[in-house]
Amino acid sequence: MTASSENALKERQFKIVGTRPLRPDGIDKVTGRARFGADMTAPGMLIGKVLRSPHAHARIRGIDASKALALAGVKAVVTHADFSKVGADLDDVSCNVMARDKALYDGHAVAAVAAVSGAVAAKALRLIDVSYEILPHVTDVEAAMGADAPVLHEDMFTSGIRPKPDRASNVVHRHEFGHGDVAQGFEQADVVVERHFTTAATHQGYIEPHACLGSVGPDGQGELWCCTQGHFYVRNACAAMLGMDLSHLRVTASEIGGGFGGKTTVFIEPVALALSRKAGRPVKVVMSREEVFRASGPTSSTAMTVKIGATRDGRITAAEAELKFQGGAFAGSPVDLGAMTAFACYDLKNVKTVAYDVVANRPKQAAYRAPGAPMAAFAVEGVMDELAGKIGMDPIALRLKNAAEAGTQSSYGPKFGPIGFVETLVAAREHAHYSAPLGPHQGRGVASGFWFNFGGQTCVSLNLHADGSVALAVGTPDIGGSRASMGQMAAEELGIDYDKIHTIIADTSSLGYNDISEGSRVTFSTGLATIQAARDAITKLCGRAAQFWGIPEDAVVWEDGHARPAGANAGDFEPLSLAEIAATAAKTGGPIAGHCEISAEGAGVSFATHIVDAEVDPETGRAQILRYTVVQDAGKAIHPSYVEGQYQGGAVQGIGWALNEEYIYGDDGRLQNPSFLDYRIPVASDLPMIDTVIVEVPNPGHPYGVRGVGETSIVPPLAAVANAVSAAAGVRLTELPLSPPRVLEAIDGMAAEDEA
Amino acid sequence: MTASSENALKERQFKIVGTRPLRPDGIDKVTGRARFGADMTAPGMLIGKVLRSPHAHARIRGIDASKALALAGVKAVVTHADFSKVGADLDDVSCNVMARDKALYDGHAVAAVAAVSGAVAAKALRLIDVSYEILPHVTDVEAAMGADAPVLHEDMFTSGIRPKPDRASNVVHRHEFGHGDVAQGFEQADVVVERHFTTAATHQGYIEPHACLGSVGPDGQGELWCCTQGHFYVRNACAAMLGMDLSHLRVTASEIGGGFGGKTTVFIEPVALALSRKAGRPVKVVMSREEVFRASGPTSSTAMTVKIGATRDGRITAAEAELKFQGGAFAGSPVDLGAMTAFACYDLKNVKTVAYDVVANRPKQAAYRAPGAPMAAFAVEGVMDELAGKIGMDPIALRLKNAAEAGTQSSYGPKFGPIGFVETLVAAREHAHYSAPLGPHQGRGVASGFWFNFGGQTCVSLNLHADGSVALAVGTPDIGGSRASMGQMAAEELGIDYDKIHTIIADTSSLGYNDISEGSRVTFSTGLATIQAARDAITKLCGRAAQFWGIPEDAVVWEDGHARPAGANAGDFEPLSLAEIAATAAKTGGPIAGHCEISAEGAGVSFATHIVDAEVDPETGRAQILRYTVVQDAGKAIHPSYVEGQYQGGAVQGIGWALNEEYIYGDDGRLQNPSFLDYRIPVASDLPMIDTVIVEVPNPGHPYGVRGVGETSIVPPLAAVANAVSAAAGVRLTELPLSPPRVLEAIDGMAAEDEA
Repeated sequence: MTASSENALKERQFKIVGTRPLRPDGIDKVTGRARFGADMTAPGMLIGKVLRSPHAHARIRGIDASKALALAGVKAVVTHADFSKVGADLDDVSCNVMARDKALYDGHAVAAVAAVSGAVAAKALRLIDVSYEILPHVTDVEAAMGADAPVLHEDMFTSGIRPKPDRASNVVHRHEFGHGDVAQGFEQADVVVERHFTTAATHQGYIEPHACLGSVGPDGQGELWCCTQGHFYVRNACAAMLGMDLSHLRVTASEIGGGFGGKTTVFIEPVALALSRKAGRPVKVVMSREEVFRASGPTSSTAMTVKIGATRDGRITAAEAELKFQGGAFAGSPVDLGAMTAFACYDLKNVKTVAYDVVANRPKQAAYRAPGAPMAAFAVEGVMDELAGKIGMDPIALRLKNAAEAGTQSSYGPKFGPIGFVETLVAAREHAHYSAPLGPHQGRGVASGFWFNFGGQTCVSLNLHADGSVALAVGTPDIGGSRASMGQMAAEELGIDYDKIHTIIADTSSLGYNDISEGSRVTFSTGLATIQAARDAITKLCGRAAQFWGIPEDAVVWEDGHARPAGANAGDFEPLSLAEIAATAAKTGGPIAGHCEISAEGAGVSFATHIVDAEVDPETGRAQILRYTVVQDAGKAIHPSYVEGQYQGGAVQGIGWALNEEYIYGDDGRLQNPSFLDYRIPVASDLPMIDTVIVEVPNPGHPYGVRGVGETSIVPPLAAVANAVSAAAGVRLTELPLSPPRVLEAIDGMAAEDEA
Repeated sequence: MTASSENALKERQFKIVGTRPLRPDGIDKVTGRARFGADMTAPGMLIGKVLRSPHAHARIRGIDASKALALAGVKAVVTHADFSKVGADLDDVSCNVMARDKALYDGHAVAAVAAVSGAVAAKALRLIDVSYEILPHVTDVEAAMGADAPVLHEDMFTSGIRPKPDRASNVVHRHEFGHGDVAQGFEQADVVVERHFTTAATHQGYIEPHACLGSVGPDGQGELWCCTQGHFYVRNACAAMLGMDLSHLRVTASEIGGGFGGKTTVFIEPVALALSRKAGRPVKVVMSREEVFRASGPTSSTAMTVKIGATRDGRITAAEAELKFQGGAFAGSPVDLGAMTAFACYDLKNVKTVAYDVVANRPKQAAYRAPGAPMAAFAVEGVMDELAGKIGMDPIALRLKNAAEAGTQSSYGPKFGPIGFVETLVAAREHAHYSAPLGPHQGRGVASGFWFNFGGQTCVSLNLHADGSVALAVGTPDIGGSRASMGQMAAEELGIDYDKIHTIIADTSSLGYNDISEGSRVTFSTGLATIQAARDAITKLCGRAAQFWGIPEDAVVWEDGHARPAGANAGDFEPLSLAEIAATAAKTGGPIAGHCEISAEGAGVSFATHIVDAEVDPETGRAQILRYTVVQDAGKAIHPSYVEGQYQGGAVQGIGWALNEEYIYGDDGRLQNPSFLDYRIPVASDLPMIDTVIVEVPNPGHPYGVRGVGETSIVPPLAAVANAVSAAAGVRLTELPLSPPRVLEAIDGMAAEDEA
């Protein structure tokens, strides 16, 4: 994209994009009409329930389900043996859905029952006799890396180290990357700060537990209704585990009561289908909250060391990080994404990052909003904060001095195109919040964050009705307002009212493959496909008008919702509206549609800077968030209210993660707090109004400049909150969550140090 | 199409088309897994019930629902006032769905209730006080045409007659058409036969009553699940009656338990939606069998006079018909279709047809398989049979002598292209059945029939999955095996196994507009669109292969399921299968799909000739069908078992219509037999095995030659059975049904005549 086209994008005037129409799912959700995962039933439906391991690590010697099967009303029992062998890409998923030889964590599914009622199914679970050989376990990431740690997978040999290891380990891989010479860089530094950080595993905390209704007939044809962020992925994973052709399974995504990354994989869905296939009846499975905590996908707990050196005037000379993430019982923690995002905000000459992916006896992690990045930013931005203090520089000024810009070689490799990091820093510095006075025991924290934003496979169909209204069929579940934003982009492109467009989430047989609603890809990718589908429809609309007027197709242009003759020789005709052309479509060749199937490329990275004020009660150690401001580059905000909602939601989840949320395991390896009573997410009274500032530096890879907003917003809060609480407490806090006992301990420790 | 391409079509070898794969809905239907109209539920769902007029004709002075609304558990009452004013095209439909000023027939809906249970709703119906002014009524078609008949619509003036009438009438219109000089033709005849015929109204007799689940939120967004032959039409009709944009209503077609034309309109669907909108909760409405009989759409009762003259050697010199069809309480009987099909089998120099569309105090008729044609054929083929007898000619020979062929100017106007009527006559004549011996009291009947077959608006999307299996999304509900036949055509075109394709019926928001599954249009139109969508996908597949090989797109051809380099300079590459190309689609540009939106043209007319043997018990008048053979031109039979099933089903429904089925009205204008106990459809023990012969004279308007088979098969049976029974009884029978009392009366009348 040339500079002039970039400017054109910046200055483009929109009619519908940027406005704030009512959310299309709002009334459905507040009136209870929206159908979630558990809201579907089928005639003859059974209830499925899952038997879960009470042991953190145990070999399964045998499963005897004969007593359960003998219970009246029990129609089927399945174990891992009922699933097909899958490819390497899904083997872990399959073993997580149902344990194969070993139960690898407290809550790991070992069998499942389908029965005529939930009560019968629950009773049947108690009649299944599992013979376990209990094995030693490990749940802490650094302990799991120890030479004497119990090994989860005897065939797991760490990749990325030399010499090639000769014994199994819980370390999946070691990755190292960077550029420049870090040792030399640290030599040039006037000040070096190095700290060790830890974060606890947290859960996405979505309100709706996983729920589905599956059905497979004796002809091998299946249907699945489920709450998910990606029903096409669910289709592929379930079909593989059931040994079905993809065309034989039709998956419909229900309304979704929160996902945040946690609904990007499968847990109960293949189980419901396998039970249904065996029982010959539809099977509904709904997780309890306890099951969600014990056996869905929380994020990694981590241990990280970050070291940054700078000159007295604030120029960073070297930066280095070592990140250790445990991803639960299977490979695939987001440590690599964390490592790539760690230093992405900065223009660094010398940078090195080392990442360790580690397994431990915990539930297999799932994505959680910008997977890996919040923890990495917590460590890096904590060190940046301390560094600013040591050299006596304003923390935003330090970041501005080292900020990545267009042309910067990123710490993870590629050169950045146009980006908006500097713009977020400037907007934060100029925000009234940043210069507001603070009271006693109060502190202000600042932190920045980065996320890639994804593209990927996307299919959209747009059908014009005879009355000029439009059905827009997309395949990405709406997790953050995409029905509205897609409708806005289609209306903008077609030149019609937003109200004329109704966006639906099509099932897996009605549309081509769509990647999961994740990675902040939807507004970018599905938006791109929507715009292209609209342009496809416009081409056809112009063709019909040309046919009607008897002029060449290229003598017709689409402007402001109308086909118009264009050019000197096109002729003088009254413009035809979309509705007018659609009304006669049956007689001019048939219905008019626009389609687009793409692997979307050109996603634009985004940055955010957060400011937070906290007050710490020195008597209890309790931290209260007083004020919070999110500044983030959206590229282009299609529906600003939803963008602000994403900013606010990311901040709130980050506040919870920073202050209170954590998976607590006992010595027995069992999760001690699997409920919202004991796992404390922020409630309204914990929070101030989250203020937001939308920065718009257009992404040249999208026709309207969209970047994606859902994930970057959760990257800075852990660090911003920790920086604020550290300032308020007067002591650097490096272990999350900053729960009252931990803060109190740090204050007491500091006092003891002072006294000593 | 040239003669050589016609021959190519005749001689084309198919791999999958013409085979008989298992029906995809079979197991679902026999195991109860298939979800029909009544099988859907929603949280908070209410039950809707309809209050129906007990009077055949009554002015509605007022409706007081206050007592019903006061009943605990009643959530809404609707009357006609709750629906929007609709355009002229839907005004009758709207007034049929819910009476406006007058109840026009026994069973006409006047109000509806939604309540928390069916029992409460039923009780509430009894609490609704409707003040009726009872008016005189008329139910017989010829009586309704009388000058002194009670007039249903005071604003209905017969069109098509001169002088323009000055008073209202029950005759909607008089249409007359034909060619040549009929009077002159009859002068040239050696023999003239003229007869008056009547047929009773019959019902399609589908097993599944109308059922739906509708939901409209306070935001005006609606959803509807219903059993229908055309959910896009239902969407349009309901949206109009509710005053909604088409994009605001999403309709999903359930599995359908029979329709045969009777599910091509709306009855309870707008009512469920209006109740839901008012109650704020989803509403399910399921008709009882009594409601289906009293208030859905049976076919017309008719009175017809046919006169045909011929020379002694069997050449028809003139043919004339006067057809009077009552269409129930509203305009729109299928008399025009009956009139157009009446003489369509024959090559006639002089032909005239007069059609009267008449209203009477009966439920508004709906389509019933080849609407209008079976009755017209009953009359024409009855006269043909008598004529053959009078000139001592074999009835098939008489038909062959006058048979329409390619180039014949049809009795209804256009010239025929390649048609297969002669082929059906020859095949019938040569069938062993035709020369088999008959016993005492047995008779053989022959009759032919014609149907147009329709085209129309059709949209298909075809999505290739990564494993090479295919989802085929069509928008025409599968009423006769179309999921299989579409899958076969897609597999044939793509060159892959049939099992790799799964056909689904997409909802109204996932696909563009599709006309109703009616008029035998689906295998032709949706087939055409499927083939074109497959070709669209093939173009893209070849493009990906070209990209992979680095050669021009036009240097790639698709053969036998593989992309292959073609031409001298294309290069030497291993062919790539569909599955291979699909597997890498994500990396070569995105998912691959094929789409087609058309108004299908080029439908091919079809003909059938039936042979039937009947035996009449002279003591009781009961007629038993002994043997039955259907010979029909399919154009091309995609799935021969389904084609044979259509042939058999048409014959069986025709046998019921001919022998026993009839709507019986009392003097009070109320239907006396609204149940399957009193309305007698054929059961297995009434029927012989129906033998079938598939003739294939390809339709040049379809790539594989498809014509359509569902309707022509019901056109000859009324006449064929009546001709056989007349032969067995020894007396010409002209009034249907040929129920035992009526046959006995005819035998007795003949005996009395003989004695006199």
